[in-house]
Amino acid sequence: MTEARTRRRTRGGGGAARRAERGAVSFETAKYIERNIPNFEVLNEEALEIIEYNAETILEEVGVNFVDNPAALERWRNAGADVRGERVHIPRGLARELIKTAPSQFTQHARNPERSVEIGGRNLVLAPVYGPPFVRDAKGGRRYATMGDFNKFVKLAYMSKWLHHSGGTVCEPTDIPVNKRHLDMLLAHMTLSDKPFMGSVTEPSRAQDSVEMCEILFGKDFVQQNTVMTSLTNINSPMTFDDVMMGSLEVYAQNNQACIISPFIVGGAMAPVSVAGTLTQVLAEVLAGVAYSQLVRPGAPAIFGAFVSSIDMNSGAPTFGTPEASLVTYGAGQLARRLKLPFRSSGSFCGSKLPDAQAAYETANSLNMGLMSGVNFMLHSCGWLEGGLVADFEKFVMDADQLGTLHAMAKGVPVDADSQAMDAIREVGPGGHYLGCAHTQAHFKTAFWKSDLLDYKPFETWEEEGARDTYQLATNRVDQLLGTYQKPALDPAIEDALNAYVAQKKESMPDSFM
Amino acid sequence: MTEARTRRRTRGGGGAARRAERGAVSFETAKYIERNIPNFEVLNEEALEIIEYNAETILEEVGVNFVDNPAALERWRNAGADVRGERVHIPRGLARELIKTAPSQFTQHARNPERSVEIGGRNLVLAPVYGPPFVRDAKGGRRYATMGDFNKFVKLAYMSKWLHHSGGTVCEPTDIPVNKRHLDMLLAHMTLSDKPFMGSVTEPSRAQDSVEMCEILFGKDFVQQNTVMTSLTNINSPMTFDDVMMGSLEVYAQNNQACIISPFIVGGAMAPVSVAGTLTQVLAEVLAGVAYSQLVRPGAPAIFGAFVSSIDMNSGAPTFGTPEASLVTYGAGQLARRLKLPFRSSGSFCGSKLPDAQAAYETANSLNMGLMSGVNFMLHSCGWLEGGLVADFEKFVMDADQLGTLHAMAKGVPVDADSQAMDAIREVGPGGHYLGCAHTQAHFKTAFWKSDLLDYKPFETWEEEGARDTYQLATNRVDQLLGTYQKPALDPAIEDALNAYVAQKKESMPDSFM
Repeated sequence: MTEARTRRRTRGGGGAARRAERGAVSFETAKYIERNIPNFEVLNEEALEIIEYNAETILEEVGVNFVDNPAALERWRNAGADVRGERVHIPRGLARELIKTAPSQFTQHARNPERSVEIGGRNLVLAPVYGPPFVRDAKGGRRYATMGDFNKFVKLAYMSKWLHHSGGTVCEPTDIPVNKRHLDMLLAHMTLSDKPFMGSVTEPSRAQDSVEMCEILFGKDFVQQNTVMTSLTNINSPMTFDDVMMGSLEVYAQNNQACIISPFIVGGAMAPVSVAGTLTQVLAEVLAGVAYSQLVRPGAPAIFGAFVSSIDMNSGAPTFGTPEASLVTYGAGQLARRLKLPFRSSGSFCGSKLPDAQAAYETANSLNMGLMSGVNFMLHSCGWLEGGLVADFEKFVMDADQLGTLHAMAKGVPVDADSQAMDAIREVGPGGHYLGCAHTQAHFKTAFWKSDLLDYKPFETWEEEGARDTYQLATNRVDQLLGTYQKPALDPAIEDALNAYVAQKKESMPDSFM
Repeated sequence: MTEARTRRRTRGGGGAARRAERGAVSFETAKYIERNIPNFEVLNEEALEIIEYNAETILEEVGVNFVDNPAALERWRNAGADVRGERVHIPRGLARELIKTAPSQFTQHARNPERSVEIGGRNLVLAPVYGPPFVRDAKGGRRYATMGDFNKFVKLAYMSKWLHHSGGTVCEPTDIPVNKRHLDMLLAHMTLSDKPFMGSVTEPSRAQDSVEMCEILFGKDFVQQNTVMTSLTNINSPMTFDDVMMGSLEVYAQNNQACIISPFIVGGAMAPVSVAGTLTQVLAEVLAGVAYSQLVRPGAPAIFGAFVSSIDMNSGAPTFGTPEASLVTYGAGQLARRLKLPFRSSGSFCGSKLPDAQAAYETANSLNMGLMSGVNFMLHSCGWLEGGLVADFEKFVMDADQLGTLHAMAKGVPVDADSQAMDAIREVGPGGHYLGCAHTQAHFKTAFWKSDLLDYKPFETWEEEGARDTYQLATNRVDQLLGTYQKPALDPAIEDALNAYVAQKKESMPDSFM
C-alpha cells in the first residue's frame, strides 16, 4: 500500500512501479473537454423561477418516499423535515439550503494521474455505456453479456482516444454470480485500464467492497481525502428513494466518493408528458437526493443527474434521441447550474436494434445536445443500443469516434491574429486557392477534426476496397484495437493485493444469481 | 391567366379550378418552423467586431473580381467603388450601406397559398437536396440521374410532411439536354407539387425562362409584385463573381425574385483553414454579392448564404457534418442577423457513400446545427449523399423524417399552467405512474414527436418482422409514398399553357449537352 501511495504522489515512485511502467504502451487519450462555447439555454428567467417554485411545492406538499430506510427518515426528521410514515415532506428552502455544502466541481482521481478528471464547471467528462444485460456484434449477434465481453469493453474504452473514463457496469457479466460480479468488474477497471471508473451500487455491501478495493489501489488515506469513484444512484421516479440505492449512496457519501443523483425517467410514465412538468419533478427529486447526500456527509460530491427518454405511446417503448428529451436536458442543465452542481445527462442514446442509420441519427442528436446543454459527466457516451438493453461492440467504436467531434466543437472560435488569417487571404486573393499557402501549411494537420473510422475516400476507391459501410469498418476497428491492446502498467504488489481481495471475498459467500 | 390570378387571390376562383380541386388528395404538410428557442451563438461581441472589420478590409484592400461582366463593373463604379480591371475595391462602409435596402424577411409564394413560406426572422424553411448528378437507391444502385428520378423526388418532397419547399435541381436530369432540362424541372415543380420552388441559375436566359413560366403559373402582375422563386447564386470563392451566376442574379433581382448569395467553401481550399478566417471571407463575399443585388434593384430579396464543408487533408476530399463547419455556420448566423438578412446554410450533409451510420451521424450533426444556428432557409435538408454527388432515395425519406425533430425542438418549452402539470404530479404521487392520469390522457397524442419511419418495436417483434434496418424500412417507405402519390389540383388551362411554353422553348433551339 505504501508504495502505491508513494508512486501516485511523486509520479515516479518505487522500483517495482518503475519496472512496470517501462513495459507500458502509451496511448493517446484526450484530456476531458473544457468548453470554450456557451451553453444552450431554452428556459427564460420566468420559466426557471416557475419550475423552481413548483419543485419545492412538490417537496413540501407531496413529499418524497424513502423506502425501508429508518435511518434516512431519522436524518430528515433531525434536519427539520415533516416525516409521515415513509413520506418525507421537505419545507420550502430546506433542501436548497442543505445542498449548499455540495461542491460545484471536484477531481475524480485516476490511478494514472494524467487521466484524472475534473467534474463540474465548464468541463465535460465522457464515460461509456452502463448497464446492458446483452451485447451484440456483427459476428456473434445479440446474446447475454459475459465477463469476457466486459473485459473487451474495458480494453476498448482504455484505447479510445476521446473517452476520459472507464465507466462502471459497461455490460452486465451475466455469467458471474450477481453477488460477486462487482468484484470482477472493479478488478477489470483497475487492472485493464488506468482511467477513472465507477463503483458498484447494487447493494450497500458492494459499495463498501468498491471502497475497499480502491483503498488497495490508491491507498486508504488517499481515498478518504480524495474522490476516486463516481457512482450512479438512480431515483425510482416519481419521488421514490429505495433502500438499496440509498444504502449505496450512504456508503459512498460517508467515504467522500461521488454520487450521481439521477431521476430515471421515461416521459409520460415516470413523469408528466410535458417538458416543464418533467423538469419540475426532476428538480424536486434531485434536490431531495442531493440534500440527503449532504445529510449523510456535508461536502460529499454529488452530481445533478437527469436520465430522460420519451415514450412511444403506441407500443409503450421508451424512445431516445428525441426532441422532447433534448428540451428536458437543456432545461435540466440550466437548473443544475443555478444550483451550482455538476450535471450528468445525455449519451449515445438510441432505440434501434442495430448500429444503423436510426441508431446514428438518435445518437448524434443526443451527443450534440449533451455538449450544448452543459453536461459535465456523460454516461453512456458510446456503445448504447436498443434502449440500453444492448452494449454493441461496433457502435462502441463508432460512437467513440464521434466523441471527437464534441472535443472540436467545444474549442469554439479563436480570433487571435493568426486565426484571423488575413495574411492568407491577402496572399491567395480572388480566384486563388488556399491549399498551398503558408497559413494552411502551418495548420492543416490540426485545423480539422479527423475521424479514425469514417470513410472519406472517393467513390471508386471505396468500391474497389469492398464498398464497406460504417458497420463493417467498425467491425475491423474493434478487431484492430483488441488485437493491439496492452495492459497499462500497475505495481505488481497492488495487482496481487487486488486479486487476493477478490478471491477472499468470493470465497466468503455462496454464489447467488438473484 | 386571369383565372389563375383570380384563384390565387380569392382562394377559390373559377369553375375549372374548383373542379380540379375537388379531385385533389389532401396531404398534411407542416407549416414552416417558427422558432421558439434561442439561437446558439459562438462568437462574442469582440470577435464579431474583428471579423466585421476584417471583412471590410478585404473588400477595400484586396477587392473582389466580377468576371466578364462590364455592366457589373459599371454599376460598382457608379456606386463609388474603385474598379481596377475586373477587380472591384469596395470602400469600407459602402457594401454595408447598400445592403440596407434588402428586406430582412419576405414571403415566397406557392401556388397553393397554404404552402407559402416566410423566409427570415425566426423562421426555418426546409428544402430538399440540390444539384447531384447521380442518384442511388437500394434496388438500382448508383447511377446517373434522369428526369424520371427527378419527378420521383418532386413527388416525395410533395408528400413529405416536414418539407416546406420543393427545392430546385433536386438531381440533375442528365438524360435531358443541358439547355432544356431547366424547363422540364420547373414544369415538374409547378405541376407535380404545389409547394414553393427554385428557379434555374445555369444561364441568364434560363433564369428568364423561369420567370416567364412563373408568370404563366402565378400571373404576370403577381410575379412582378411578389416573390415566387428563390434561386441559388454561388460565389466562386475566394472572392470571384462569375458572369453566369451574376447574370442569373441580375435577372432574378430585376424581377424581384430572391437570390441566395452563397460562398461555396471547402475549408482549407476556397477559404483559410481557420474558422475565423473563413467567416471573414464569407462575410466579405456575401456583403459584396448582396450589395450587388441591391445595385441591380434596391429592395430585391437576398439571402446570406454559407455553404461550408471542411477538407480531409489526406485525400483532399471535402468532409461534411464536421465540427469546424458547424462553428462556421453558428458564426455566420450571427453575422447574418447583425446584417438583418435571412440566412441560408446547413443541410443533410454527409460524405458517406451509403445511407448508413456515417451518413446519419454527419447529417444529424448538420441538421441540429442548422436549427440552432438560426438558419432561415435550409437547402439540402434531405437526400444528400456522398458529398453532394448523389441524391439518395432512401436517405431522402430518412432525412425527411428526421426533419420532424427540428419542428419539435423549435417549439421550446411552454410553461403555462397546463404544461406545469402540477395537478398530474399531485395526482400520481411518489411511486405511481403517469400513463393513465388525466394530464397524460389529454396530451399523449401530441406530447412527443413520432417518427413515421424509425423502429420502436420490441426486439422480438422486430426480429419476427424480418430484422430490418433503417435502410430497408426506407426502401419500403419510398415505394409506399410513390405508390400513393396523387397530383395536386391545377387549373388545366394553366397546365396547358405551361406545357405549350416548354414545348415551344424546346423547339426553338437545338439540343446541347454542354
